[in-house]
Amino acid sequence: MLAEKRRSALDAIFFPKAIAFVGASNNLNKWGFLILHNLIMGGYEGPIYPVNPKEKNILGLPAYPSVAAIPHPVDQAIFTIPAEQIPPAIAEAGRKGVRAGIVISAGMGELGEPGKALEAEMVEQARRYGMVLVGPNGQGYACPQSKLYPWMPAFLPPHGPIALISQSGNIQTWILQYLERVGFGVSKTVSMGNAADLQAGDYLCYLKDDPETRVIVLYLEGLDQGREFFSAAQEVSPRKPVVLVKAGRTEAGARAARSHTGVLAGADRVFAAACGQAGIVRADTLEQAAIYAAAFAGIPLPAGKRVGIVTGGGGLGVMAADACVAAGLTVVELGPRACERLRKLLPPWWVPGNPVDLVAGLGYAGPREVIPVLFEEGEVDGVIMIGLGWAHGMVETYLKHSPLRKLTDLTPFIADRLKRDREYNNLLADLMEKSGKPLYMIGPAVAHAIERGWEGMSDILRRGYMIFPTIESAVQAFAAMAEYRRLRELRQAPEERPAAPAPARALER
Amino acid sequence: MLAEKRRSALDAIFFPKAIAFVGASNNLNKWGFLILHNLIMGGYEGPIYPVNPKEKNILGLPAYPSVAAIPHPVDQAIFTIPAEQIPPAIAEAGRKGVRAGIVISAGMGELGEPGKALEAEMVEQARRYGMVLVGPNGQGYACPQSKLYPWMPAFLPPHGPIALISQSGNIQTWILQYLERVGFGVSKTVSMGNAADLQAGDYLCYLKDDPETRVIVLYLEGLDQGREFFSAAQEVSPRKPVVLVKAGRTEAGARAARSHTGVLAGADRVFAAACGQAGIVRADTLEQAAIYAAAFAGIPLPAGKRVGIVTGGGGLGVMAADACVAAGLTVVELGPRACERLRKLLPPWWVPGNPVDLVAGLGYAGPREVIPVLFEEGEVDGVIMIGLGWAHGMVETYLKHSPLRKLTDLTPFIADRLKRDREYNNLLADLMEKSGKPLYMIGPAVAHAIERGWEGMSDILRRGYMIFPTIESAVQAFAAMAEYRRLRELRQAPEERPAAPAPARALER
Repeated sequence: MLAEKRRSALDAIFFPKAIAFVGASNNLNKWGFLILHNLIMGGYEGPIYPVNPKEKNILGLPAYPSVAAIPHPVDQAIFTIPAEQIPPAIAEAGRKGVRAGIVISAGMGELGEPGKALEAEMVEQARRYGMVLVGPNGQGYACPQSKLYPWMPAFLPPHGPIALISQSGNIQTWILQYLERVGFGVSKTVSMGNAADLQAGDYLCYLKDDPETRVIVLYLEGLDQGREFFSAAQEVSPRKPVVLVKAGRTEAGARAARSHTGVLAGADRVFAAACGQAGIVRADTLEQAAIYAAAFAGIPLPAGKRVGIVTGGGGLGVMAADACVAAGLTVVELGPRACERLRKLLPPWWVPGNPVDLVAGLGYAGPREVIPVLFEEGEVDGVIMIGLGWAHGMVETYLKHSPLRKLTDLTPFIADRLKRDREYNNLLADLMEKSGKPLYMIGPAVAHAIERGWEGMSDILRRGYMIFPTIESAVQAFAAMAEYRRLRELRQAPEERPAAPAPARALER
Repeated sequence: MLAEKRRSALDAIFFPKAIAFVGASNNLNKWGFLILHNLIMGGYEGPIYPVNPKEKNILGLPAYPSVAAIPHPVDQAIFTIPAEQIPPAIAEAGRKGVRAGIVISAGMGELGEPGKALEAEMVEQARRYGMVLVGPNGQGYACPQSKLYPWMPAFLPPHGPIALISQSGNIQTWILQYLERVGFGVSKTVSMGNAADLQAGDYLCYLKDDPETRVIVLYLEGLDQGREFFSAAQEVSPRKPVVLVKAGRTEAGARAARSHTGVLAGADRVFAAACGQAGIVRADTLEQAAIYAAAFAGIPLPAGKRVGIVTGGGGLGVMAADACVAAGLTVVELGPRACERLRKLLPPWWVPGNPVDLVAGLGYAGPREVIPVLFEEGEVDGVIMIGLGWAHGMVETYLKHSPLRKLTDLTPFIADRLKRDREYNNLLADLMEKSGKPLYMIGPAVAHAIERGWEGMSDILRRGYMIFPTIESAVQAFAAMAEYRRLRELRQAPEERPAAPAPARALER
């Protein structure tokens, strides 16, 4: 669907050989400074040519009066000049051989006429020269693999398996922040803005074949080319999950959306039906979109909706069971074989049942012995495991406050705890790898663990797995993944499951 | 309702003069070690007497063979000995003059008969001597004001305005972790366990008059004494919001709850109606319970459900508007006066409307100019403000990566940014203080900010205000608070509103 010519032009967005920055500035309060500054900060290794007729040097780089005046080849240009100057500037860039233009400038289609006419003229110029355009009225894009962050926020998210295409710049940043808090980075991310040229469907087609992208997240407010989009989604979704969060579902939201990107939000029910047919997974909130994406990227797909729950405290099991029922999952009753095996592992006061409550029995079996029983007895499609990574929190507190510090050398005790924690966490990751079944590990301290580099949890994350911050986020992801798999199997002959997560990507920078 | 005698015995839980620890141990794998260790780590300043006939010293403290053998007065005793030894040990403590017993030991009512008989015997002994009992089968309690943390987790949450009473120990820890992540600490928190003696209603009565507690959170799985509880809640809720999260709402959850604390979960619909009558605010998840509590403690009550939205990016405004409608709030249309005043402040391409999208206009008015207009024109009961605290994230990235470091001294630039951020954040807090209207500030980086001590946000938190981590959490808290106020006004003659948050409490340790 995406013509080969356009595909190669899209490569010039994410893998440019040289970038011209039209509207570069030395004024710290202009986007022409801030975005250029972020571009340099990110560490992009190709040449950057600031264009500004009034300056000689910008941020230590020689400036040029025009794109035409740059004495080297250029395949990407970024524009922060006023809207009315954009069409001729695009034409000039086109003549220079630029393949991709990133138009940050606002003041076009989102204002209605005459902005729409200006926008159409801009697109016409681009197409005349075979250029593709990102924007206008977006905040830019990022491709960590190429160390490229030409956008508004001073924020350099790490590389990871998730692509994010967003109709809003701020929301792009927010979703990436939520992803970062669960340990996931991004393969490519674009703020589409008004999407005057490149549309959501074009990005989908491109990402379908992108080897760095295993899951795609979209934030949309409305669609100009609905048919193209859904047809692209239908092609992509069997290969890579497409997670969509859409704003403007209510009248108040739609009103707000109209003034934001000038796009009319469609009637939500029609839209929902089309999403279902195209195999799109819908998320209700930005946080949920990030969590679904990380879940798809970070753990195997469950084969169905049968859940086993393992918990270090009964109350958490009760909450999880409630959440499962609310999400349409089945908390299975354990068969006699599973109960028998568990009874031998757990304290005498254990009450057989699912959730499997480990009843705070110090010295008895823990999740690493109990989870294999649940996996092996074949009664569950996935296990929700609550409570993880205590050791580091404990160690931090001990090092700061323990009375033992005065009585004894704490080093061996702490080293032992951390070693056990690390082994334990790696064993949980091994269990998933071996069984191919998903383990929904929940730890409210996961963001803490990432922030502080807690070893055991970081091991799991470094191996590409996911730890969920809340019970509900895990349960909802379980349900969404099971439903995705069911729909995929309905729609096609069973094909190979997406591979287990590639190691060592999630936390890479 | 709570007899004076029992109230003073409850004081011996939170403000003991001396503590006996029955079952203290030198074995690092026993609760008798871990809980005693946490008690000492917390910094409790009164005497602690470990009781264990087999040891001379435990954790550097002289041990006693029995409570009776302690040659000093003792008003609190903690028990980690096997269940069958509890009743005589309680009697011995009672004879010694102990007023409050904390029974950690499991193996009682939650196992059915004969555990129930043992539990009844324990309570009988306690009542004979006028003792009150926490537990059994709980994880202990904490009172940061008294530097008291005699419980299972190695976790020392800070002092704050929220009390938490929980039927589950793990859930107690989780809710406190969620509170910590939004910058709030706890006044008193108890893991009720089986609640054989002290019940949820007793704690409510006690907390009603506790000057350190401004909001009460409860986690319940079921109730033994429903009538007493709801009557206590009805008395407390007009003075202090009572936020309840209840597990066991579904059949699977209820099944799990029965084996956990041996309490039968009631039919949820009946329960919901009783909660409504008693003025209880219900939360659906543990995270939501923490956020509601922090919101009640951290910002003024909205007078109604009319919302103004201020956003630095249109997409976020659209999401917020959708969430408001879903939560039953009204995104008001702005009147001509408000629009006129805003038009003078904002860039020419601003499209008048609510959400007020600040349209990334560098150099134009920001939230500090726009929010007063919304407050003053009197059309909204509260403002949702999205996007806060950029400067610190930016500064961290600049210090690490900026090319400017090589070109110029960044110190004045960064100092200026931080100063402006700080002024800006304090001004937002001032706006709330002056207007008495709530500002629902949303920043996904709030946990980051707390973790790293970012100045501007920390200022707001130190002043006792709340920053919400997600759009939905803010919107749902707005709706819950407006509903609480409506119900309170229906139920009673208008009385004084709860005071604005006391300064300098939220982050205190």
